Amino acid sequence: MNNTYHTFQYKDLLDFTIQVFTKMGCTPEHAHQISTFLLRADLRGIDSHGIARLTGYVRLWEAGRIVTDSQAYIVHETPSTATLDGAKGVGMQVGYQAMQIAIEKAKNCGSGWVAVKNSNHFGIAANFSIMALEHNMIGIAMTNASALVAPTFSKERMLGTNPICYAFPSKNEAPFVADFATTTAANGKLEILQRKQLDTPNNWVQDKDGHPSNDAHILKKGGSLLPLGGDISTSGHKGYALGSIVDILTGVLSGASFGPFAPPFPAYVPMPQFMPGEGLGHFFGAMRVDGFRPLEDYFENMDLWLKTFRNAEPIHPEQKTLIPGDNERRYEEERIKNGIPLIDVVVNDLKQLGAHLNIPFNLTAI
Amino acid sequence: MNNTYHTFQYKDLLDFTIQVFTKMGCTPEHAHQISTFLLRADLRGIDSHGIARLTGYVRLWEAGRIVTDSQAYIVHETPSTATLDGAKGVGMQVGYQAMQIAIEKAKNCGSGWVAVKNSNHFGIAANFSIMALEHNMIGIAMTNASALVAPTFSKERMLGTNPICYAFPSKNEAPFVADFATTTAANGKLEILQRKQLDTPNNWVQDKDGHPSNDAHILKKGGSLLPLGGDISTSGHKGYALGSIVDILTGVLSGASFGPFAPPFPAYVPMPQFMPGEGLGHFFGAMRVDGFRPLEDYFENMDLWLKTFRNAEPIHPEQKTLIPGDNERRYEEERIKNGIPLIDVVVNDLKQLGAHLNIPFNLTAI
Repeated sequence: MNNTYHTFQYKDLLDFTIQVFTKMGCTPEHAHQISTFLLRADLRGIDSHGIARLTGYVRLWEAGRIVTDSQAYIVHETPSTATLDGAKGVGMQVGYQAMQIAIEKAKNCGSGWVAVKNSNHFGIAANFSIMALEHNMIGIAMTNASALVAPTFSKERMLGTNPICYAFPSKNEAPFVADFATTTAANGKLEILQRKQLDTPNNWVQDKDGHPSNDAHILKKGGSLLPLGGDISTSGHKGYALGSIVDILTGVLSGASFGPFAPPFPAYVPMPQFMPGEGLGHFFGAMRVDGFRPLEDYFENMDLWLKTFRNAEPIHPEQKTLIPGDNERRYEEERIKNGIPLIDVVVNDLKQLGAHLNIPFNLTAI
Repeated sequence: MNNTYHTFQYKDLLDFTIQVFTKMGCTPEHAHQISTFLLRADLRGIDSHGIARLTGYVRLWEAGRIVTDSQAYIVHETPSTATLDGAKGVGMQVGYQAMQIAIEKAKNCGSGWVAVKNSNHFGIAANFSIMALEHNMIGIAMTNASALVAPTFSKERMLGTNPICYAFPSKNEAPFVADFATTTAANGKLEILQRKQLDTPNNWVQDKDGHPSNDAHILKKGGSLLPLGGDISTSGHKGYALGSIVDILTGVLSGASFGPFAPPFPAYVPMPQFMPGEGLGHFFGAMRVDGFRPLEDYFENMDLWLKTFRNAEPIHPEQKTLIPGDNERRYEEERIKNGIPLIDVVVNDLKQLGAHLNIPFNLTAI
């Protein structure tokens, strides 16, 4: 398999992506916002959720599962809560709007919580949580996704990788931004092993009969991802609970589809025959820090928390203790400066997409 | 070690516990509420958090770390948020009051969020989340605790087992109540292995140098619990993130102590020399379901969610797929009827406590 990389400037990839979303009918403003959010995955080193998925979004749009000239709207609300109908919009745009509503509500009454139905894949959850930081708010984002994960004791795929992100503001220390799938490993990690022709560690996957497996290709053979914690002896039932919490908040509370009925990302996979709700679901939260205590008091303790944990005694001196988000921030600093490496499979895919949409992908690799 | 059990009626144990908390100076109403919450751990099969800890609470009171004639009070609030100073009260009582405030706020503006400082150990988190269910609200509860858990890449104990509980209301199906420590295993699970003289499975603990260990006694030798997910190859960094989120919401946001500075449960363990905040911290949330969509619409989908997951295809036909809370509910039904088994170590401890407080523990084992 082709494993070679070419590296492109962030700005060039962003321009191409904006052109694609504009071609799909997004307003210039929306196309820019969506593309910034999509590419932030590449910048932060979450290569599986970035420009590699651009073709996937185009296909969903061509299949009518994404609609770009619609407008999301609030269907139900109280002073601190709301449900947004995403009107089949691009997930990154719908989520941006939902998080803005959550932030507005938090300004008015301390916290804001927005469930979203009838949306689509929103990229990385961190995009939305991070929006809260400049307002000195805690930001929360989660989404459901099509089912790949088996509950404890089951061999059936019932849950998506259902990520959760919490971002906490800080003053002098770099902030805490934890964004993680509620599985041992997300699909992107399997793809890396597939390319390297390696087995998975224990507790990542099981086969179609529910037996332990180390086959990185097992999802194509009817197997499942395991929830965070793995099997029952290492408390996989807790990861199953966590993924379920996300599915209920994003899917059941909003009126989206959920569990095994969540719509798939690849446009060639048929929609579930039965759908108890509309589209994918998300859930967003914003809480004003000064809804709980004076901001400066919080900052003092939060900076101390961050410093204390960054200085926790390491097992190996060469690998310091990290705060969630530290790795991604280092990637972002590095890739903004030195470019984003794309594997040739992705580059070829983008070239074909460019040809298909009449937007030449003639970028120069660095 | 003595492993024999004697079984006692719930009602008898409750009466004894109420007498103890009354002796500690709690009002009759508080003593009853606290005792009900403490004993619910035993009923639900969480033996480590129930009456086995009664002596521990008495010792904290005797050491002046718990105060029973104080009154918790709100120090900061907005329409949907508040911070409660627990005034060193018994955790179960402080938490009950905080959750009531969260529910009141949710009635008024859709959701309510209450951080708590200057509190103590609150027993099982499920007690508080479940309070939301009769109001058709989603209930959330979490707490920090003294440090036993090492962050990924570290050999230092920095976090407590920091449990999270989410309870979701339902109509015809038994509700979803997930209550779990954010570690692979909580301390109580280690104690069970110690009594049976068994090793731990992999990924539960590490030794004082951060090496993998299977020694159920390792905490006494400077070792640590591992976060949910275990080591880095099975995504222990996600469990570390999760435990950190709990620590920040409960400790930093409230103004409680946090991380390695959280106060210990055993009264004989000295308090941390440096404490950046007051006491232990909790965090509670209540969200009105009808703050997001009409209640009946939610119930229809929530019941379907529960039914669908309970019927997920099992790996072994004799072990059906469970919903979080199913096990605990079965324990509760069984133990309310047939009594609560206590190991002799606990029975002897209660007898000594009774003699010490002049409340004879002369209950008849079934």
